[in-house]
Amino acid sequence: MRNLKLVVEYDGTDFHGFQRQPRSRTVQGVLEEGFCRLLAEPVRLAGAGRTDAGVHAAGQVVSFATSRPLRVERLVQVLNGVLPRDVKVQHCEEADASFHARKSALSRTYRYTITERERPSPLAGRFALVAAPGLDVPGMAEAASRLVGRRDFRAFQARGSAAQSAVRRLLRLECVRAGSLVSITAEADAFVHQMVRRLVGALLLVGRGSWESEAVLRALVSPGSLRLPPPAPPCGLCLMQVSYGAVAEPRLQG
Amino acid sequence: MRNLKLVVEYDGTDFHGFQRQPRSRTVQGVLEEGFCRLLAEPVRLAGAGRTDAGVHAAGQVVSFATSRPLRVERLVQVLNGVLPRDVKVQHCEEADASFHARKSALSRTYRYTITERERPSPLAGRFALVAAPGLDVPGMAEAASRLVGRRDFRAFQARGSAAQSAVRRLLRLECVRAGSLVSITAEADAFVHQMVRRLVGALLLVGRGSWESEAVLRALVSPGSLRLPPPAPPCGLCLMQVSYGAVAEPRLQG
Repeated sequence: MRNLKLVVEYDGTDFHGFQRQPRSRTVQGVLEEGFCRLLAEPVRLAGAGRTDAGVHAAGQVVSFATSRPLRVERLVQVLNGVLPRDVKVQHCEEADASFHARKSALSRTYRYTITERERPSPLAGRFALVAAPGLDVPGMAEAASRLVGRRDFRAFQARGSAAQSAVRRLLRLECVRAGSLVSITAEADAFVHQMVRRLVGALLLVGRGSWESEAVLRALVSPGSLRLPPPAPPCGLCLMQVSYGAVAEPRLQG
Repeated sequence: MRNLKLVVEYDGTDFHGFQRQPRSRTVQGVLEEGFCRLLAEPVRLAGAGRTDAGVHAAGQVVSFATSRPLRVERLVQVLNGVLPRDVKVQHCEEADASFHARKSALSRTYRYTITERERPSPLAGRFALVAAPGLDVPGMAEAASRLVGRRDFRAFQARGSAAQSAVRRLLRLECVRAGSLVSITAEADAFVHQMVRRLVGALLLVGRGSWESEAVLRALVSPGSLRLPPPAPPCGLCLMQVSYGAVAEPRLQG
């Protein structure tokens, strides 16, 4: 059996998330269906990040085993021919038998994009949160920088998440402004469910002046001490890159 | 009766163009329906540019007359509340009784966006044409600059267009590269049907080295002398701005 590693890009708007579900259109479901048709054998994918409904990906990584001898370049072309326009393969390569898209990943990088506009924007708003101008980005950046490190992110986990450890190593959490665009980049060994969107929700309170910049860290270390805002909407979030160390670094797209 | 002028933004992907049609979802149809519901009176809009199916707009201008006294700021908010997420009003103002979004317009500005990528891109490809890297943009820019002026654009008109004059004043046709993005900006007093997309189709032949840069002008002045390529796909095209002179200049959005 060969083991293949693929980098996949998708517009998450019309998917019920990455993970396969019986009666919903999901990225994993659509990809597995495409692979099955192409390879005429059952395919079970592993994916690096279980993105939620409406979340996009520029650099999702998936892996699967196949017995078919199709060349990788040909496989990408044919597969992209059968896939719908909102999900396409960007890259495919042979991987070691031990490679697993999720288990082998060292870190995931997400980007949350906010566009400052007075009105809802059909063009800018497909891949960004549209927010009223005037965000205090230096304040958000300061609040974000305090959170970096190995911490228990239970406070920023989706309600009803399985009661496993929420300890994660947050490697990077940066807020940057470029004109009317504000982007928040988060890299961690792994994320608890809805972690980036809940962190962004809290950082937006800082950006609006409703919270002091140290409040986000306080909310993290003393769960229940502050009432947390809802998660930021999924349209602004994109899985940019999954890292596996120097050997198998996927290219950053878009 | 008041006369209102509005700037409208839309993602054209899921519309059968701007112009009202009996059984298709169109921008004009959706806007008129929204206005009718809100104002409880029949509304007939005039639009500055009849964008085709799949073509976007950041600065479409529409006008209509109404007897209702609703304040413009309130009107925008309430209307955006009932409009679907792929079309939203950006601005509304009182206009002179003589103002007509189409007839009063002095010029329209369209932008065609090309993104150079090896693979089809669900994220970049919604609002741009995805093309193989390596376009000769200086060559395209030179070809484009030769076309500016008052000319008969019959050769770049959609097949089967009504046999009216195709003489238009092309004020600007510029090709610019910014990294992997190539944008073509076209401004004219008015455009014949599919003119920008057909010009872009020909400029792409120059960009690929299939045509010399003077060929596009030759195709224009000697219709039939060269076999013209099909129009570039609509997803890359966006109506950016409509100009009415210094008094009523709409803001350039996005």
